Amino acid sequence: MNRQLNIGVIGLGRLGGLYGRYFLGRISGAKLVAVADINEELARSFADLNNVKRWYTDYHELLANEEVDAAVVVTTTQAHKEIVVEAARAGKPTFCEKPLSLSIDEALDMKNVIERTGTYFQLGFMRRFDNGYAAARRSIESGSIGTPIVFKSSSRDPYRPSLEYLDPNNSGGLFTDCGIHDIDLARWLMGEIATVYSLGGVLAYPEMNEIGDVDNAIVTLRFAGGQLGVIDLSRSGVYGYDIRTEILGTKGTLKIGYLRETPLMILTSDGVTHDTVPYFMERFGQAYVTQLQDFVDNVRNDKPAPITCDDGIAALRVTLAATRSLKEKLPVAVE
Amino acid sequence: MNRQLNIGVIGLGRLGGLYGRYFLGRISGAKLVAVADINEELARSFADLNNVKRWYTDYHELLANEEVDAAVVVTTTQAHKEIVVEAARAGKPTFCEKPLSLSIDEALDMKNVIERTGTYFQLGFMRRFDNGYAAARRSIESGSIGTPIVFKSSSRDPYRPSLEYLDPNNSGGLFTDCGIHDIDLARWLMGEIATVYSLGGVLAYPEMNEIGDVDNAIVTLRFAGGQLGVIDLSRSGVYGYDIRTEILGTKGTLKIGYLRETPLMILTSDGVTHDTVPYFMERFGQAYVTQLQDFVDNVRNDKPAPITCDDGIAALRVTLAATRSLKEKLPVAVE
Amino acid sequence: MNRQLNIGVIGLGRLGGLYGRYFLGRISGAKLVAVADINEELARSFADLNNVKRWYTDYHELLANEEVDAAVVVTTTQAHKEIVVEAARAGKPTFCEKPLSLSIDEALDMKNVIERTGTYFQLGFMRRFDNGYAAARRSIESGSIGTPIVFKSSSRDPYRPSLEYLDPNNSGGLFTDCGIHDIDLARWLMGEIATVYSLGGVLAYPEMNEIGDVDNAIVTLRFAGGQLGVIDLSRSGVYGYDIRTEILGTKGTLKIGYLRETPLMILTSDGVTHDTVPYFMERFGQAYVTQLQDFVDNVRNDKPAPITCDDGIAALRVTLAATRSLKEKLPVAVE
Amino acid sequence: MNRQLNIGVIGLGRLGGLYGRYFLGRISGAKLVAVADINEELARSFADLNNVKRWYTDYHELLANEEVDAAVVVTTTQAHKEIVVEAARAGKPTFCEKPLSLSIDEALDMKNVIERTGTYFQLGFMRRFDNGYAAARRSIESGSIGTPIVFKSSSRDPYRPSLEYLDPNNSGGLFTDCGIHDIDLARWLMGEIATVYSLGGVLAYPEMNEIGDVDNAIVTLRFAGGQLGVIDLSRSGVYGYDIRTEILGTKGTLKIGYLRETPLMILTSDGVTHDTVPYFMERFGQAYVTQLQDFVDNVRNDKPAPITCDDGIAALRVTLAATRSLKEKLPVAVE
Repeated sequence: MNRQLNIGVIGLGRLGGLYGRYFLGRISGAKLVAVADINEELARSFADLNNVKRWYTDYHELLANEEVDAAVVVTTTQAHKEIVVEAARAGKPTFCEKPLSLSIDEALDMKNVIERTGTYFQLGFMRRFDNGYAAARRSIESGSIGTPIVFKSSSRDPYRPSLEYLDPNNSGGLFTDCGIHDIDLARWLMGEIATVYSLGGVLAYPEMNEIGDVDNAIVTLRFAGGQLGVIDLSRSGVYGYDIRTEILGTKGTLKIGYLRETPLMILTSDGVTHDTVPYFMERFGQAYVTQLQDFVDNVRNDKPAPITCDDGIAALRVTLAATRSLKEKLPVAVE
Repeated sequence: MNRQLNIGVIGLGRLGGLYGRYFLGRISGAKLVAVADINEELARSFADLNNVKRWYTDYHELLANEEVDAAVVVTTTQAHKEIVVEAARAGKPTFCEKPLSLSIDEALDMKNVIERTGTYFQLGFMRRFDNGYAAARRSIESGSIGTPIVFKSSSRDPYRPSLEYLDPNNSGGLFTDCGIHDIDLARWLMGEIATVYSLGGVLAYPEMNEIGDVDNAIVTLRFAGGQLGVIDLSRSGVYGYDIRTEILGTKGTLKIGYLRETPLMILTSDGVTHDTVPYFMERFGQAYVTQLQDFVDNVRNDKPAPITCDDGIAALRVTLAATRSLKEKLPVAVE
Repeated sequence: MNRQLNIGVIGLGRLGGLYGRYFLGRISGAKLVAVADINEELARSFADLNNVKRWYTDYHELLANEEVDAAVVVTTTQAHKEIVVEAARAGKPTFCEKPLSLSIDEALDMKNVIERTGTYFQLGFMRRFDNGYAAARRSIESGSIGTPIVFKSSSRDPYRPSLEYLDPNNSGGLFTDCGIHDIDLARWLMGEIATVYSLGGVLAYPEMNEIGDVDNAIVTLRFAGGQLGVIDLSRSGVYGYDIRTEILGTKGTLKIGYLRETPLMILTSDGVTHDTVPYFMERFGQAYVTQLQDFVDNVRNDKPAPITCDDGIAALRVTLAATRSLKEKLPVAVE
Repeated sequence: MNRQLNIGVIGLGRLGGLYGRYFLGRISGAKLVAVADINEELARSFADLNNVKRWYTDYHELLANEEVDAAVVVTTTQAHKEIVVEAARAGKPTFCEKPLSLSIDEALDMKNVIERTGTYFQLGFMRRFDNGYAAARRSIESGSIGTPIVFKSSSRDPYRPSLEYLDPNNSGGLFTDCGIHDIDLARWLMGEIATVYSLGGVLAYPEMNEIGDVDNAIVTLRFAGGQLGVIDLSRSGVYGYDIRTEILGTKGTLKIGYLRETPLMILTSDGVTHDTVPYFMERFGQAYVTQLQDFVDNVRNDKPAPITCDDGIAALRVTLAATRSLKEKLPVAVE
């Protein structure tokens, strides 16, 4: 397909709205022609404001719209399976935001349908498309740091999302909702993970006890190749959105991340001060756009997806093992 | 006017093409409906690639198109006067890239027509819209550094543009082409400039002698209020595009600028290394978009232009004085 | 005692020689009057070169020298107990380098003699005297980051010390030789540690297998108060000596550490580069001097020691638990 | 002379006291045996506190003391000539702090006596011994940045010294007291200076008008080889002691300087903050020690002085020209 790809976005929440707007001019070769959200007001106003041709409250209608060439799924995780399966059966190339699912069984069902129908499917892990992480991967491949032996990653939200969002029944919990990004990076940059051990606590927001999840956690990784890893996660990085990764190799080390948004420093008798990165839209705007462009380019040029169901399943197996380790207070082998 | 603004871009060179693409989705409330460039192939292919309704080789036709609500002028500086005057007479709100003109007389003519016709006119000095510079101005106004007393600014291109571009007959020379950005910042952040003294040389590219301009220069400023300033300019900042400003106040100092593009650091036995900012598109992409959005918002909401002909004329008077100082090897008062 | 303190240094290896030289003018109120080392040539040449009055190959003679007011013990860890006990019995105020001992039983013996004799004893953990770590502690106490909840620390040697030095029979292994610094910081800045879990491997230097120790390791900490911690250790930080600590609190985060030795940056088309910190003498020179000055001041002014046998024993219990966890591949409670 | 050098320090003010203390153990091959200061209490207490054998109020007696091998002169600039001349006549190798003199005639007299007597003489410009500046010079010599073409330097005091100190009759004024360091660097790193143009003002401390000097100034330099330079000087760098130099070459750029003293960063919702460098003792401690060590080594090993009367005279000619330019408001050729 070499003509422009007509996109339908399903789910217009915080991230879905962002993705929808990226399709209004940031992504070449694609046009946003339809949106769907169960919230009627949200769907209508987005379409009106942005001159989108069609809006729906029922995603089935969007997928049934013949003008829609491809679907971008940014709904709650719980809805992923049903929508992705239907999109695959409808033969619509699909991009689905992470995590693939909260259940391995569901994820395997999705995989089966996708493989049987042969429909294009790409899973979202935008960090792989961040200029910093992409350069890190190329640098490792070029041999700049020798053999990677230790992986460290840190993800901190600037504030606690709503308890409803955080509820493990919705989000999958800290490891599956947030840590899965670091796990995907670990797999992508280092290789498969064999064993995990988690430590966590309700240390910043006592109300987290209500929903049965922790607000801070550390998980160590033993890779299948024997290398070591550690990820620390926090819902209370109150100074800003802080995403950092470090890879120690036998000949050098890579550090990915930054902590300053505005190129201004203020020097007074109180010291030197700059601001921090507010949140994910600022930190990963470039990565989101590049990722969606990659999706569009792959579909238009019949190229394989760089991130697949298998990546989603493998990452999920690790986050589920980490979640189990937290409860059992013991190291857990990834199945 | 509350409906969407239909934009015509005149001039599709390096910066004009960039501006044109920004109007394909980055700027809300506006739509690119026409482009013009004397290079037919350039105009046609831009329009084709980006689904722009109309393309012209003659800007008169663009301005005569009733569907075009507003004009964005990004041609060579020599063409500014003629186009801006005609746009003003046609009552089309106009954005014109810096420098306004290479001649004070021409600039005054433009001002007269604009004032007489009452047509909206906004001059481009994108640095004022950069998050760093905008935050610096707010910080000064908040009193964070007391009274500003010394202004320092540095602008370095990563490589020499073509001699044709650099020819003072086209570009106006190093001060008017490049230093005018720093001069505008100086005026905006500190106040009017009374006297300048310049020093320059052909130090990096001997071929600059052919066109009669320098490749490196320093100009000191005495502000009307007695404060001090200095700007250094270079066409040979071979390590990257380096734009930095510093304002020393009685209670503190502000530094604006940065030198790292990709959030990756490589640590080996050779040291710690990161990349630099490639060029202006990377450094000022946000500022260009914000500036064009500001133009669109002002026109739609009948708000006055933040940067006017007077700003262009005042900056030009300083760069012409700096150019004269270079030749006379003496301090020169700004007229 | 208000007069100058006459110091005898026992052990003139890498660190002992450094300490000896610090007493030649960097420490006020003290004078180096004697040195001892089992290596006769080392003892003689140090004394000759630095005009030290007495030198010995047998530390008993140094301790028997009535002119020696206080002893600084920088021998191999194996020799600590015997020397410290004898110094305590001789009533000589003693500074002893970390680790106190490789054995809890020996350490308890030392503690008993010191307490029974009432002789002043100070254990060396120089990081507490580093301006960065000292400022971090004051900052935490001032409430700047609210309640500390996550502790992270990283210690990397720029190259592998000799296998003889590293042999766990001599060094105690990676946790007790190197990680004990981070453990002491964790206790000092956060509180007591309840449980540890270690992960390690021979990943950089295959010859480490000969001596039965790992070259890279990660250990997670559960503090008695429920907070979380993680320490990563490496013998292969080939880019430099990299010591970093981070403390996440409910209201902010502290980061201690730096990676640049010479205040020079080189900007070329290859990027921006600076050097790194070579090794511990450069990183902790100020801390070593401040620590020895503190020892001298405490002895002269009858003030209690800031770091005691108990600190040495508590840290050792943690590093021994971490060592055990590495072997058992399970979390281990600190006794 | 291979034996230890017995040092007499003349002048025990802020810097003289610092130098005196450096000789108590930081400088090898030297011993402080005598001090002199016209303030009797200062001389006596310094000697008492630091076990210095002899103290004097009259420097003649120090120079007449046969035990004194070499003199270190850190008095007011006005006293330099008399003391240096007498030391030279007495055949005592001499180190003299910058500036050499406030008068070219006096400086030439000093030079004549030194040359006639053949006594070793070294002038102090400690920045050349700073690890950053020394590495910059080596880097330039290695060709890392091609041909240096633009020199920029900035010196800011964190607060105004006393008016008595600043009085141009004592200090020589901003250019000769403070800017002379940058001028020496410019000569050392770039070559001789042909023309200067200065701009200055009383912008921060109105009381500076009483003594007839400015508190902020900018001076541009035209080097004899055609290269460009600019130095900005401030008595009101209220955020800290900020000394920075930058050299733009045809193949790259060097930046020397830093702005952080304590290796601690504090990250809160107010941003990321670190402290600044307090003052010259912190910034240049290493350079002062290295410089004095160099003096001692040169004298003991009969090596020529790296910084001579000629360097002092050449720098003074530039600062006097800059001072004149400030008054005449015109560019001034260096004689």
